[in-house]
Amino acid sequence: MMTGAQYLASLQDGRTVFLDGARVHDVTTDAGLGQSARIVARGYDALHRPGPDARNPVFTIPRTAEELRARCELLTKHDVTLSLSAVAMALLTSSTELTHADPAAGERIQHWFDDCATRDVRFAELITDAKGDRMLAPSQQDDPDLYVRVVDRDSTGVVIRGAKFHTTAGPIVHELVVLPTKRMKPGEEQYAIACAVPADTPGVIQITSSHHARHGHPRDKPISAKLAIPDSMVVFDDVHVPYERVFLDGDVARSAVIAHSLGLWERLSGVAHMAHLGDQLAGMAQLVAEANGTAGISHIKDKIADIVIYATMTHACLEAALANSEVGADGMLLPSELYTNAGKLHAANHYAVMVRHLHDIAGGTIATAPSFADLANPETGAFVEKYLRGAKGVSADERLALFHAIRNMTADEWGGREAVSWLQSGGGLFAQRTVTRNHYDMAHAKATARALMEPIDD
Amino acid sequence: MMTGAQYLASLQDGRTVFLDGARVHDVTTDAGLGQSARIVARGYDALHRPGPDARNPVFTIPRTAEELRARCELLTKHDVTLSLSAVAMALLTSSTELTHADPAAGERIQHWFDDCATRDVRFAELITDAKGDRMLAPSQQDDPDLYVRVVDRDSTGVVIRGAKFHTTAGPIVHELVVLPTKRMKPGEEQYAIACAVPADTPGVIQITSSHHARHGHPRDKPISAKLAIPDSMVVFDDVHVPYERVFLDGDVARSAVIAHSLGLWERLSGVAHMAHLGDQLAGMAQLVAEANGTAGISHIKDKIADIVIYATMTHACLEAALANSEVGADGMLLPSELYTNAGKLHAANHYAVMVRHLHDIAGGTIATAPSFADLANPETGAFVEKYLRGAKGVSADERLALFHAIRNMTADEWGGREAVSWLQSGGGLFAQRTVTRNHYDMAHAKATARALMEPIDD
Amino acid sequence: MMTGAQYLASLQDGRTVFLDGARVHDVTTDAGLGQSARIVARGYDALHRPGPDARNPVFTIPRTAEELRARCELLTKHDVTLSLSAVAMALLTSSTELTHADPAAGERIQHWFDDCATRDVRFAELITDAKGDRMLAPSQQDDPDLYVRVVDRDSTGVVIRGAKFHTTAGPIVHELVVLPTKRMKPGEEQYAIACAVPADTPGVIQITSSHHARHGHPRDKPISAKLAIPDSMVVFDDVHVPYERVFLDGDVARSAVIAHSLGLWERLSGVAHMAHLGDQLAGMAQLVAEANGTAGISHIKDKIADIVIYATMTHACLEAALANSEVGADGMLLPSELYTNAGKLHAANHYAVMVRHLHDIAGGTIATAPSFADLANPETGAFVEKYLRGAKGVSADERLALFHAIRNMTADEWGGREAVSWLQSGGGLFAQRTVTRNHYDMAHAKATARALMEPIDD
Amino acid sequence: MMTGAQYLASLQDGRTVFLDGARVHDVTTDAGLGQSARIVARGYDALHRPGPDARNPVFTIPRTAEELRARCELLTKHDVTLSLSAVAMALLTSSTELTHADPAAGERIQHWFDDCATRDVRFAELITDAKGDRMLAPSQQDDPDLYVRVVDRDSTGVVIRGAKFHTTAGPIVHELVVLPTKRMKPGEEQYAIACAVPADTPGVIQITSSHHARHGHPRDKPISAKLAIPDSMVVFDDVHVPYERVFLDGDVARSAVIAHSLGLWERLSGVAHMAHLGDQLAGMAQLVAEANGTAGISHIKDKIADIVIYATMTHACLEAALANSEVGADGMLLPSELYTNAGKLHAANHYAVMVRHLHDIAGGTIATAPSFADLANPETGAFVEKYLRGAKGVSADERLALFHAIRNMTADEWGGREAVSWLQSGGGLFAQRTVTRNHYDMAHAKATARALMEPIDD
Repeated sequence: MMTGAQYLASLQDGRTVFLDGARVHDVTTDAGLGQSARIVARGYDALHRPGPDARNPVFTIPRTAEELRARCELLTKHDVTLSLSAVAMALLTSSTELTHADPAAGERIQHWFDDCATRDVRFAELITDAKGDRMLAPSQQDDPDLYVRVVDRDSTGVVIRGAKFHTTAGPIVHELVVLPTKRMKPGEEQYAIACAVPADTPGVIQITSSHHARHGHPRDKPISAKLAIPDSMVVFDDVHVPYERVFLDGDVARSAVIAHSLGLWERLSGVAHMAHLGDQLAGMAQLVAEANGTAGISHIKDKIADIVIYATMTHACLEAALANSEVGADGMLLPSELYTNAGKLHAANHYAVMVRHLHDIAGGTIATAPSFADLANPETGAFVEKYLRGAKGVSADERLALFHAIRNMTADEWGGREAVSWLQSGGGLFAQRTVTRNHYDMAHAKATARALMEPIDD
Repeated sequence: MMTGAQYLASLQDGRTVFLDGARVHDVTTDAGLGQSARIVARGYDALHRPGPDARNPVFTIPRTAEELRARCELLTKHDVTLSLSAVAMALLTSSTELTHADPAAGERIQHWFDDCATRDVRFAELITDAKGDRMLAPSQQDDPDLYVRVVDRDSTGVVIRGAKFHTTAGPIVHELVVLPTKRMKPGEEQYAIACAVPADTPGVIQITSSHHARHGHPRDKPISAKLAIPDSMVVFDDVHVPYERVFLDGDVARSAVIAHSLGLWERLSGVAHMAHLGDQLAGMAQLVAEANGTAGISHIKDKIADIVIYATMTHACLEAALANSEVGADGMLLPSELYTNAGKLHAANHYAVMVRHLHDIAGGTIATAPSFADLANPETGAFVEKYLRGAKGVSADERLALFHAIRNMTADEWGGREAVSWLQSGGGLFAQRTVTRNHYDMAHAKATARALMEPIDD
Repeated sequence: MMTGAQYLASLQDGRTVFLDGARVHDVTTDAGLGQSARIVARGYDALHRPGPDARNPVFTIPRTAEELRARCELLTKHDVTLSLSAVAMALLTSSTELTHADPAAGERIQHWFDDCATRDVRFAELITDAKGDRMLAPSQQDDPDLYVRVVDRDSTGVVIRGAKFHTTAGPIVHELVVLPTKRMKPGEEQYAIACAVPADTPGVIQITSSHHARHGHPRDKPISAKLAIPDSMVVFDDVHVPYERVFLDGDVARSAVIAHSLGLWERLSGVAHMAHLGDQLAGMAQLVAEANGTAGISHIKDKIADIVIYATMTHACLEAALANSEVGADGMLLPSELYTNAGKLHAANHYAVMVRHLHDIAGGTIATAPSFADLANPETGAFVEKYLRGAKGVSADERLALFHAIRNMTADEWGGREAVSWLQSGGGLFAQRTVTRNHYDMAHAKATARALMEPIDD
Repeated sequence: MMTGAQYLASLQDGRTVFLDGARVHDVTTDAGLGQSARIVARGYDALHRPGPDARNPVFTIPRTAEELRARCELLTKHDVTLSLSAVAMALLTSSTELTHADPAAGERIQHWFDDCATRDVRFAELITDAKGDRMLAPSQQDDPDLYVRVVDRDSTGVVIRGAKFHTTAGPIVHELVVLPTKRMKPGEEQYAIACAVPADTPGVIQITSSHHARHGHPRDKPISAKLAIPDSMVVFDDVHVPYERVFLDGDVARSAVIAHSLGLWERLSGVAHMAHLGDQLAGMAQLVAEANGTAGISHIKDKIADIVIYATMTHACLEAALANSEVGADGMLLPSELYTNAGKLHAANHYAVMVRHLHDIAGGTIATAPSFADLANPETGAFVEKYLRGAKGVSADERLALFHAIRNMTADEWGGREAVSWLQSGGGLFAQRTVTRNHYDMAHAKATARALMEPIDD
């Protein structure tokens, strides 16, 4: 297993990364991407165990309810790049089915997976295509490259062209795993391509959105400092991918298999994260109410109770998903699709109102509080200390920490990214609703309704 | 165990019951109460097994997750009087604690419980007092009888006076179990009274609200015919209760113990019922959309999905409550308080909007459909048949059955009672929120928030 | 103008009305329909002025903001049959346009309208067809009669066949005004028929849903006694309509003109009624909280505030609709389509939750309160009086009146009909949303968004 | 009247302003505060008319419905500093009442107001005190300075100490108008102080939160560039205020008069702004849906309709507030308190969900879109151009502009400040609800409920 330092060194591989209109020559020394890389490095150090047989636990396939729960806890405790290993797991559990059309696919996947585990690398999921006009199929677009496709091939591999959006962690991981964004139709074979591309491959160009704090005292931005991982748009400018890294190639009928397998893991991770997030929101709300001296006011208690119930309902779905898990084709324990999707939808759907509650409880100071830099400045520090104190015993330092944490979590560049991300991960509210609906046992529901309607002999 | 016929006979005991301003001399032959009694009788027949050792399964205390789940399923499959046995269970599991002040309490409870099991009787819970001015304590009311109290006693027992409201099933059960509605304070010993009173005891007067259908063809009201159990206001007009039926007598410190124990079982039953109800609403919505030929319209699908998600979230809480159950003092397996209460609150809170969805999907015909009597009438039947037909293959009979079922379930005397009852059972939304909040681990939530706020050494 | 007595006499015309599977030979003496007829009769008496020139003010077309507001107030003060005169107004204001294809249409409408005004009659709107499979056009149905159509004609008139649903007040008015339910297409000329049919015409058969109280003391049901007007399904079993009563006949292009004109008036009346209804809900909630002694509790105040805001927002839309009215083609002052529709939608959309608030505030007693008959019964009256008293000074009589009023308004046969009716009138929530959206000035909104996006020279 | 340039020059007065831990010596040249100052300067230029008699129209008191509407339009068209002139208006219209205790107060106010109008200055409102423990009164705090108070006085004026929070525009205006935050009680005379302090007075120290964009291409942040005005915490470190600038001094009974008068104007301005904001959200949603090619999808249309209805309801309240305005004591036309407050509450309450809709409609690209700097960069521009194109005819430039505008409006530092500010302005949701409730005519509502409950003689 790699240490954090080894991981940082591994990123200095000449990858092509742009940020804010300029090339970033070394992501580990960039102000923003470097901060993100150090977040991941801390994760490496936390998980690190010495010896050649040591293996990152996220590469273990859960086979019991305990292992499944342990995986959820592992993911919520560390940075998001561990969650992204789901894409490797999804490939692994899709291999049986992919082998139907391509007998050697399973072997290639297993070989690549084992190699990744040995190298202890991190992954990014590349799913969302440019899409152009959303109402048109890939082959109907005026530019055929608006979905990633194979533009050429030779005896050693394929050449791909296109772009993938929303690639979380792209600039600071090793393996870019490309999947079709949806099921393709006959005639769209060139778009049925899944493969793993090293981030430093020539022709791979990442244009990055970094969500790190661009200003303010470090104590003003404690949350993005621990969580802000960049997203990138990854351009494949005619990139050669050797066949041993190609896992799906023209099999339109199975083009959605990997994405489907991934979806469940993504949403399970989403539910687990958002249940934890719900607790954080509830705790933050309670702390700031106590600091303001308003924790006993009815409407404040009522809003905190709303957040508590929000968190509890998300946890309930996670618990139900684990309690109703089923063994899949490959022995992997799969959480219940129904409860996993319902939980993700619930959490995403009501997040905006929970944030509003938190803002309502905390008060306007979350937008207007002085910086910790003003507290440190001898010309202003005494005033900040004097006037920012809260209810008995709560210092200005403690209140400033709360106000800035809430702002960083919900009302700045990072907070905005989080709001968008929780909403959109797993495909937007409509997709999350639809999947939930599709896994509901409507035949049973209709039978219960029919039983209710039956006349009674009396 | 009793058969249905034996049960009906057992109700002909001279009990004092009033309905609509008149005395009902035999509840089994009254149009409304008789229909309710026959509902319960069918339950007796369904559970009946012969032999002296046969015992109603609701008298069994669940000790494993399977038994707890089986109990939930038993309750949702049969009429509500089985759920009401929870009050006997609550007494049983409170006996250890009640014995602290009254060493013989446990023995009296056990003896009474065994006797009830042997006689295979049904119970009613008598909790809500008249209360007068809700802002005043029992002893501050201008009439001391506004909470049930002991007004006299002798060597054989106590004499109680007062009234209890919302006594579901009172007129058609055997045992009226009286509990204090809340924790009493020192000085309110006379109000700390719990006892079991046979329904035919002199001085017990029941003034009843029956929710059976008062008009319409039987097929217009299929749901109330299967579910409508009456509620009564039970007056204790100086009723003598022998000590062997008194379980709490003046112990103000423990006056809320039984109600607390009962609350959890009540709400578990509520969650289980409402999860089932959610499925019924979803199934009904889907059936009526199909019958109308609108099941493919986006906004209809969207509303059905809302009901599906509502049902699923309630089920998730039930699943989480079972998966997180804990063994109580008496070896009884207790469902998680947190998830049980959250589920009951969720289901009660959103029920009104789900009904609105169902009305929106079904259309105005649920209020204006002809009666099945109009279908049966030769002067009008052909018109009803001709004009009530729906999408291909759906007959007028089928659509009428749907429209009337939806109306009976949600938009008539019975539907109105159900809306009020689901909302109020367990104490109104505010009480349900408060209990949920109180069982949430806020210390953990605050710790997660604090961890998020910690600065990072970077 | 007719007196109430004259109106009642005018209904004894041999009309064909069925209710609950039996023919009603005289609607004025039927228990249910007679009660409804007396409601209308009281309206006649209230508006009655003697003399041959006296004229019902609802026949006056509003031409100023004051007249428009006065009309709204008139409609909300009296029974719903006055609102239904909107259909006559809609015909009148459509006459210019209808005359394009049929030069004499305007004259026929005017003549009929004047005759109706002189006779001082009441109207019903007949719009919703049977529809069969909702996904199919009238001419695609397997039975061509599923939309009302012309099946024959001679020199004196047309013969129509079909059925119209949801005909509020049909059995107790004089003029049944038939309109196409939607825009017809070329080839569907037979369905493009609008005409006025006297309720006693041979072949007109009304199958009625009556919403009057079928049981209980009169004081238990004070609201339905004042408001419950029946709905009917009206069958046209080959009914001859003379040409002077035919206003649209085969003009598919203009088949939706009258319905469109009617829609605005319907929804204005809906907003006015529901604004008034919002006040009634708020007042009822406050009264019952005061009677229970809970008016000072935070969460109760909060729920009452919700109802207050609901009522206020509905009033705001009505005020905005009147303040932004425009003069139509015929000099009639038309309220703003945008605000009228938004207000109706708002009120219909949130009604279910307001009712839930009222139920939550009032408590379970709205479903379980004794009847006024139990108060009147000497055997039980003293108990009811003793135990139903509320906060200081509130008698059992007063509280019973509140509980039963709330039940009658929201939780029984009539309350259920009202919930369905407020939701569906104006076409269900989706139609109300769509109309609102269509009247919004999106071009202006896009311009404001574009202005916001413009870069600034700085 | 001043020009923009004259205004900028007027700010170079040596005022004491801190930002991000450092002193800002010239606010007009600071990167952030200078941008804000230029926003205000553009407003000066837009309103500027030459000549000594020219007068800023915001100093005109509205006396007709047209003038009131014109004022609303003026405020929404320009930067927020014009709205802040409300504080001067509030003083003017409070002068009659303040004169009761202090006969010369009116004269001092008028003189100051006329002087401000002549100098054509801008204002800030200083209301919210530090407050310390929110549950304690000013005089109960452990530090008496937690509410601004008079600590000394001499023959020429008072000396004040304390701090005011959330002072929008403080660093870039001329007059800081100090008001008590709430009604004071007898014994709290020192806290009953209202006065106007020039921003450059010695001892006035502003610690600022600036919401300007700290990074990104100018075209990434078009909205904050036009709207971002800073907030400050203003410290009064024993500041001397001459009596001619003191308007309330110890009159506890009238200490809330100015704030009350101001509240209505603040919330009217809030409703007008948020109605406009609703249109901007609706327009933005429609534009981005069109650009993505998703404007025809049902669930997208549905969400846009939600925003449309949100905007329309806010407009309806504004219209109702104007249509129901009343003449106040000083001839000023006052908008309806009821509708103004309901509108502000509605808009603030639902803003979070409308933003969620916008995010759901726009998609994840609002968080991950490349910068305009990446479009300008020759190494990446062609890729951005190729892959960011949308539905037919929509260029990458146009889509980038939309994504960044939505992000700037709702999901970055500025968007976060806006969310908090719309929620909190006017005092948080609870205060807004309470004020709305208090202006509702509950006596009328109760009368309508009572009328409904009355029995009918039949």
